[in-house]
Amino acid sequence: MEGGCLPNRGLRHAVDWKRMDHTIAQHECGNGITLLGDLMEGRPVASFCIAIPAGYVTEPEDRLGVTGLLAGMMMRQTRRRAPRELSNSLESLGLHRGEAVRSETVQFSGALPASELASALRLYAEILRAPLFEPEELESERALAMQALASLNDRPARKVMVELRRALITSAHGRSPLGVEETVSRISCADLEREYGRRFQPHGALIAVAGAFDWGVLVGLVEELFGDWQGVPPRPAPVEIRRQEYAQMLVQETAQQQIAVGYPSVGLVHPQFYPLRLGAAVLSGGMSSRLFTEVRERRGVVYSVHASLVTLPGEGVMLCYAGTTPQRALETEAVLKAELLRMREGITEAELERARTGILSSLMMDQESSLARTGRMVADMRSLGRVRSLTEVYECYRRLSVADVNAALEAHPAGPFTTVQIGPEQDGSGPGAEVEQ
Amino acid sequence: MEGGCLPNRGLRHAVDWKRMDHTIAQHECGNGITLLGDLMEGRPVASFCIAIPAGYVTEPEDRLGVTGLLAGMMMRQTRRRAPRELSNSLESLGLHRGEAVRSETVQFSGALPASELASALRLYAEILRAPLFEPEELESERALAMQALASLNDRPARKVMVELRRALITSAHGRSPLGVEETVSRISCADLEREYGRRFQPHGALIAVAGAFDWGVLVGLVEELFGDWQGVPPRPAPVEIRRQEYAQMLVQETAQQQIAVGYPSVGLVHPQFYPLRLGAAVLSGGMSSRLFTEVRERRGVVYSVHASLVTLPGEGVMLCYAGTTPQRALETEAVLKAELLRMREGITEAELERARTGILSSLMMDQESSLARTGRMVADMRSLGRVRSLTEVYECYRRLSVADVNAALEAHPAGPFTTVQIGPEQDGSGPGAEVEQ
Repeated sequence: MEGGCLPNRGLRHAVDWKRMDHTIAQHECGNGITLLGDLMEGRPVASFCIAIPAGYVTEPEDRLGVTGLLAGMMMRQTRRRAPRELSNSLESLGLHRGEAVRSETVQFSGALPASELASALRLYAEILRAPLFEPEELESERALAMQALASLNDRPARKVMVELRRALITSAHGRSPLGVEETVSRISCADLEREYGRRFQPHGALIAVAGAFDWGVLVGLVEELFGDWQGVPPRPAPVEIRRQEYAQMLVQETAQQQIAVGYPSVGLVHPQFYPLRLGAAVLSGGMSSRLFTEVRERRGVVYSVHASLVTLPGEGVMLCYAGTTPQRALETEAVLKAELLRMREGITEAELERARTGILSSLMMDQESSLARTGRMVADMRSLGRVRSLTEVYECYRRLSVADVNAALEAHPAGPFTTVQIGPEQDGSGPGAEVEQ
Repeated sequence: MEGGCLPNRGLRHAVDWKRMDHTIAQHECGNGITLLGDLMEGRPVASFCIAIPAGYVTEPEDRLGVTGLLAGMMMRQTRRRAPRELSNSLESLGLHRGEAVRSETVQFSGALPASELASALRLYAEILRAPLFEPEELESERALAMQALASLNDRPARKVMVELRRALITSAHGRSPLGVEETVSRISCADLEREYGRRFQPHGALIAVAGAFDWGVLVGLVEELFGDWQGVPPRPAPVEIRRQEYAQMLVQETAQQQIAVGYPSVGLVHPQFYPLRLGAAVLSGGMSSRLFTEVRERRGVVYSVHASLVTLPGEGVMLCYAGTTPQRALETEAVLKAELLRMREGITEAELERARTGILSSLMMDQESSLARTGRMVADMRSLGRVRSLTEVYECYRRLSVADVNAALEAHPAGPFTTVQIGPEQDGSGPGAEVEQ
């Protein structure tokens, strides 16, 4: 531990990234499943993330929401285990689990005592390969899905971001994983059977494990459980992003005006991803970021404001949010967009150093959690086809100068804006007025 | 990693808790500050939690919400650092920070690269001991506080729990940390000065650090930074819990009916805390818990339902939530309360094993995060005056039989119920109707 001076030297010299780094083990099964292992010796915990390439982008138009129902139904019972029996088996392992329906994958994640990892993977092989869809369970799962859709109306800050994605991302990647009431209400067990058979296939699936395990035993177990599973899922259509100005106003009797603004950016594969990611951190990376100091703290117009660079397969978008009083909606929208546009004028050396420190610090924090490590492995494999080492990520940020970042910000200015708002009806701020910038 | 059988043996034999355990270092400063250290060697990260005994329970009745404003103002500037300067200094350390206003403490937490821990503690000494309250910054902070209050109306699921606490916990511990609009609107800089001087005092404060550090250096630094700080804060009044039936209906045009039910339980110091905590986990500890299977999965009436045993100084309460459609509100309330009451009839051996496995598994997961470890140290010190070892917690749960748990559940049946609901007005379900059970 060092003394008391406060040099603004960032993390570039303070941490030995090479020493923190570690090798990710990788094994390819013959059927297109990739197994990844991040060994954390001495931990009593193991985490896993199984990513099946069955995301909502390949849902049929008239069965939107079927993937979420499928994932929910798969966790209820299998051909060998009745509803109560399956959940009891999972809980007896001390498993903390979660399922996430993403655009191109469905992810089954869990964390548990390392000694129970093999038992958990055996259960997940059954869940993934031997599901059973019964009408009574479907009605219960459907009721939950309909409630999830309804509850979005009581979460307007979340709803506005769902609607922004839908408006900005014009390919199927912009859909909501929840589907829509009209289609969710008519999904049958036959639909589940068909969609499971068509889309839950092993080719391109990932199994990422972090924590304490024996790699040789793990490879043998995964081959035993999943090695003879065969099939190729449908290929998703490419991502499409709206590249013209667009505005939408949804009237609802909310207390706050919910403002969401999005525009095209770049994906992880783009050569200017790292400088633009740093730019996004200058904009909204913490309490000294521009949106926080200019919009939230200095003007006090909004309680919550944030922006983030969200990556999609091969692409990226900036998604921004501000919540304010209906009276200050126009002012807030103008201030927010002005800050977004001002990024093209460039950032300062001090802003770059703080943003870089924040990103590298987050990278370091994420290393504490075995579950976060599995998520990072899956995200890298999906975007890049390989897992970046910590040293590589560190180097990608370390070598960037202010000039590099500013060149990227000038080449990728904010806009054209897609704007979605939710709020009470107001004089002179109807849909027509909102289109003006 | 073991083979494929799935014995329901729980965590009792699988993990060597003694080997996982570790010693918490402790140092008492002469002024009543206690320093706690949990060394995690080889980690590049350190986390801290500084708990000042200045929680909202000692706020004056006519200045409710002043503690949140104080904490916000303290993070804005100090007598030595202007607003931008302070946030820049904090961010330059790669610090991830958060402030929490609790009933009896205000907690300043952070996680950062271990090499920057000393610099961070120096800044926090300045924040805690040399704050500066200026009118312009106060107006900005107040605007945010008013927005936070307003945004609660757009989060009815959160609002109903705030109102439940207020109704069930009749002492000042039931207050909302946000205060109320009437008092927040009139707080002045003079109020901040007075409340800071009266309540932000070192006697009884805790500084918990986890991660990589040198204990000798840390003790010396804390003595240097905080050793000459003197003062004793006002003593909080004891907790009081409502012990008669009570019902309240708040009409709001929400999509879902928000139902909150609470009743008295016991605190961490009570001899039956551990069996009742296990009972609460049987009720609502995961996907095979009673509320999840009976209310959510089997009947499909609610999207979200949960209950938890919340500890307060010397006391405890059960807080339960269900969100459903307005049409199914009466049914849901009845089903929820029936499950709560049914606990007094006892649990099964299998339920006990699953609940115990879940609790011990969570305890193990929390060990991954240095920040979670600081929170656990502070919670134990506040409740018990000492930090329990992992082995002690493990033993407290391990030794309990079904008979022990059932005796505790019979001695502490659910009720009398305090019920708060938020939802649209309905025929025959106004406040009068809601009082009937």
